[in-house]
Amino acid sequence: MKKRLYNIIFEHDTKAGRAFDIALLWMILFSVVIVIIESIPEVHEAFFKEFYTIEWVLTILFSIEYILRIWTSPKPFRYIFSFWGLVDLLSIIPTYFDLFFAGYHYLLTVRIFRLLRVFRILKLVRFNREAQMLFNALKASSYKISVFLMTVLTMVTILGTLMYVIEGSENNFTSIPQSIYWAIVTVTTVGFGDIVPQTVLGKFLSSLAMIMGYAIIAVPTGIITVELSKNKSKVCGNCSTENPISANFCSQCGKEITQLPDAS
Amino acid sequence: MKKRLYNIIFEHDTKAGRAFDIALLWMILFSVVIVIIESIPEVHEAFFKEFYTIEWVLTILFSIEYILRIWTSPKPFRYIFSFWGLVDLLSIIPTYFDLFFAGYHYLLTVRIFRLLRVFRILKLVRFNREAQMLFNALKASSYKISVFLMTVLTMVTILGTLMYVIEGSENNFTSIPQSIYWAIVTVTTVGFGDIVPQTVLGKFLSSLAMIMGYAIIAVPTGIITVELSKNKSKVCGNCSTENPISANFCSQCGKEITQLPDAS
Amino acid sequence: MKKRLYNIIFEHDTKAGRAFDIALLWMILFSVVIVIIESIPEVHEAFFKEFYTIEWVLTILFSIEYILRIWTSPKPFRYIFSFWGLVDLLSIIPTYFDLFFAGYHYLLTVRIFRLLRVFRILKLVRFNREAQMLFNALKASSYKISVFLMTVLTMVTILGTLMYVIEGSENNFTSIPQSIYWAIVTVTTVGFGDIVPQTVLGKFLSSLAMIMGYAIIAVPTGIITVELSKNKSKVCGNCSTENPISANFCSQCGKEITQLPDAS
Amino acid sequence: MKKRLYNIIFEHDTKAGRAFDIALLWMILFSVVIVIIESIPEVHEAFFKEFYTIEWVLTILFSIEYILRIWTSPKPFRYIFSFWGLVDLLSIIPTYFDLFFAGYHYLLTVRIFRLLRVFRILKLVRFNREAQMLFNALKASSYKISVFLMTVLTMVTILGTLMYVIEGSENNFTSIPQSIYWAIVTVTTVGFGDIVPQTVLGKFLSSLAMIMGYAIIAVPTGIITVELSKNKSKVCGNCSTENPISANFCSQCGKEITQLPDAS
Repeated sequence: MKKRLYNIIFEHDTKAGRAFDIALLWMILFSVVIVIIESIPEVHEAFFKEFYTIEWVLTILFSIEYILRIWTSPKPFRYIFSFWGLVDLLSIIPTYFDLFFAGYHYLLTVRIFRLLRVFRILKLVRFNREAQMLFNALKASSYKISVFLMTVLTMVTILGTLMYVIEGSENNFTSIPQSIYWAIVTVTTVGFGDIVPQTVLGKFLSSLAMIMGYAIIAVPTGIITVELSKNKSKVCGNCSTENPISANFCSQCGKEITQLPDAS
Repeated sequence: MKKRLYNIIFEHDTKAGRAFDIALLWMILFSVVIVIIESIPEVHEAFFKEFYTIEWVLTILFSIEYILRIWTSPKPFRYIFSFWGLVDLLSIIPTYFDLFFAGYHYLLTVRIFRLLRVFRILKLVRFNREAQMLFNALKASSYKISVFLMTVLTMVTILGTLMYVIEGSENNFTSIPQSIYWAIVTVTTVGFGDIVPQTVLGKFLSSLAMIMGYAIIAVPTGIITVELSKNKSKVCGNCSTENPISANFCSQCGKEITQLPDAS
Repeated sequence: MKKRLYNIIFEHDTKAGRAFDIALLWMILFSVVIVIIESIPEVHEAFFKEFYTIEWVLTILFSIEYILRIWTSPKPFRYIFSFWGLVDLLSIIPTYFDLFFAGYHYLLTVRIFRLLRVFRILKLVRFNREAQMLFNALKASSYKISVFLMTVLTMVTILGTLMYVIEGSENNFTSIPQSIYWAIVTVTTVGFGDIVPQTVLGKFLSSLAMIMGYAIIAVPTGIITVELSKNKSKVCGNCSTENPISANFCSQCGKEITQLPDAS
Repeated sequence: MKKRLYNIIFEHDTKAGRAFDIALLWMILFSVVIVIIESIPEVHEAFFKEFYTIEWVLTILFSIEYILRIWTSPKPFRYIFSFWGLVDLLSIIPTYFDLFFAGYHYLLTVRIFRLLRVFRILKLVRFNREAQMLFNALKASSYKISVFLMTVLTMVTILGTLMYVIEGSENNFTSIPQSIYWAIVTVTTVGFGDIVPQTVLGKFLSSLAMIMGYAIIAVPTGIITVELSKNKSKVCGNCSTENPISANFCSQCGKEITQLPDAS
């Protein structure tokens, strides 16, 4: 029975396992929506009791699930200290904590991390393959992207410092960290407008930075596009057939494909 | 005569049919412009009577067209409850409704959906083929795009919640939905500036989110570019000739091409 | 001598012609900078006389150039009514106009169109070839881009109308044109923040529009990238050698290349 | 011993050299963080003495490094006047300067340029190769990018001038340079919102500019993507094997590869 429960809770290939996954998925989404809606002051005041009840029902259900996961797991400690084990724990602890220590109501928002649990359930075949593809492309180009990010970070640091000297604290550029924050807001083209250059030199420098920020966004796009277009196939070492990136065995000769996608 | 009218109204390949389409296209655009201009308070007051007359002339013409479409259609009910049938109905109903129920003037803006009717007329050969191509690329990459959108939605939910805790309602982050709205405004690089972080930690977290938002826009771009570059051809199953994506028959051997573009 | 002057003024391949081009280029840029700087109120007041003198010297020089162009041109009228002829005329007329009709000072800013004359001089071999390539890519994908633009325009029209109904004139959405302006500011991720949604429904709808706007920018990027990557070569119909897109004759066999780049 | 010190300081391939690099890297980052944090008024007042001490310790260490670099360098003058030599000097001079001339405290921020020294240390094999690749792609497409930038600059100049005439100084468009600044803020989709069009014509023109700005960002992205995808290989002139762009010798026949990546 322990073995059967394990299959239902941890695996996705039996009918019962899939039903469990779908029920859990909806419960998680429902509980996240509750956390979000509860934060609206008017709603919180009007439906305080209802939210309290719902929260406890959900927490008890999640607690049962957590205990079952520990109990059915062949290596309980490995599960508890795994990434998903900690996320599961984080999903139930705040409610219990709130019972004993009143006044730390903000702690309850930690429950939002329940949202992460959705991704465990989403390990469905098709969805997972596509996510893997995107992740591979990002990983393969991680070196290029870090070169890009370092250049951007150096740029915003120097730009922020220059603007701090040019504009000064009388124009809201009160310190270098504040100016770097402004530089990031500007170079990423967000442009809140809470801090804006006032001097002629500051506006000129900002203009240069904006045009550069506008042009350099092309670089990560180019990197990822090239990587995604490369990641289309994995060649079989035995018969040279092109297989999809997610294949473990060649579709033509059945040999295992060990070749990794080009890391360059 | 019913058959001839059907060809004129529903088809685009006769001379009369094309003339009808062009006349209808201009009438729709004209009526949409009227709806838009009428909403300007000064214009509305000055030309109230003129707009009233124009509106009724247009509505009566559209009503005649609607009745003709029902009458000439071989399966009238199928037309009425089809997407385009409902859009056609929605284009004329608000004016009649306004006649009987005064004071619901906002309802008149529903007439803006007349704009959708433009797309029916635009089912011209060339235009349609290109639209089909773009639509195919979007459809083929819909799984990847939904992975991307889910990641973005999870990111803005967690970011919004963190900012709600960090900034609190004294800095305009009054609730989690409000904070999520801010997170979407920021990550998509819109940056209205009506809500801005005030605390040091909030600014630091925003900076991280902005740089991430700036970099991850590369992902959908990469996905769609790769898909569009793949969509260039459709290989004939008989003679392996490359044909354009819009081809139904091979340009070399004339066999029908049933092969679908790669869904991966 | 007329022939020699024609070569100097209109052509770029003699030494004198190139010297003339470079002198003219600097004069144009100088005169544009003058127009820009003169608009600063403090500068205008302080150096009124100097600017007046410089302007007249430049205008007289440009006028001499204009007369020489007419005189040396084999078909003077064709030149006068050509695009560049009209731009040349537009560059000198405002100053003369200002002499006779005082008070229309804003007209003087028309001189900014002198900037366009820079592009005539820039018809240098290498520069022109690259510009041609970009222009070809845009032209070849013009159908796809117009499909995209029409979708965006329909989207902002409907979004603007909905926001006008939802937010109403008390929240700055005073008319449909104003709301469409807001929708364009939002969907293009500019986000000025002078008009922002205040209602919950308005914020929700804006969030959807922002995420869509953020994703659909991938579409034109994909279109142009694919087009640019296609535009790399032009195959010779005689010997199948790949030639650069700007080639008129095959680099291997010397035959004229008539094949056009794929319009698909 | 001079030779050994040279290897440690200037080279990266000995164990001691790498340890030196890593120690220097952390010292530079630490000193940059100090400069940034010191600019916060509250921190500056509270820890004035501590910062003063840290700054002098760091400056003396950097000075020793600078003297050692000059002493061990085979051609000292060439080092002193090289780019990195000047950056090294710029990193220590402001602190000494501050000793003699009080009151020029802003000069101390020049120390931020120490950040550039990080890039010298980062000349690690893998990191450098990727940076080289990105740099090559930008260089190879520099002509196309300059065509693009010139078009954008012409566009913002003309747009700014038109907006200056349309909106005038009563709506914050006080001069043409100010209006060009606004045009850059708008076309790059930054959108601060400190200057916004108020007239109907101004809003209409802005809308056109925003949609154009939104679409033309596709152009540099397309250029760089195509360039990056081309830069994947370097063909050996002897045996036609494809080698990675960073290769100096062919992986198959060992001949030196002199062929440059396509400049087109």
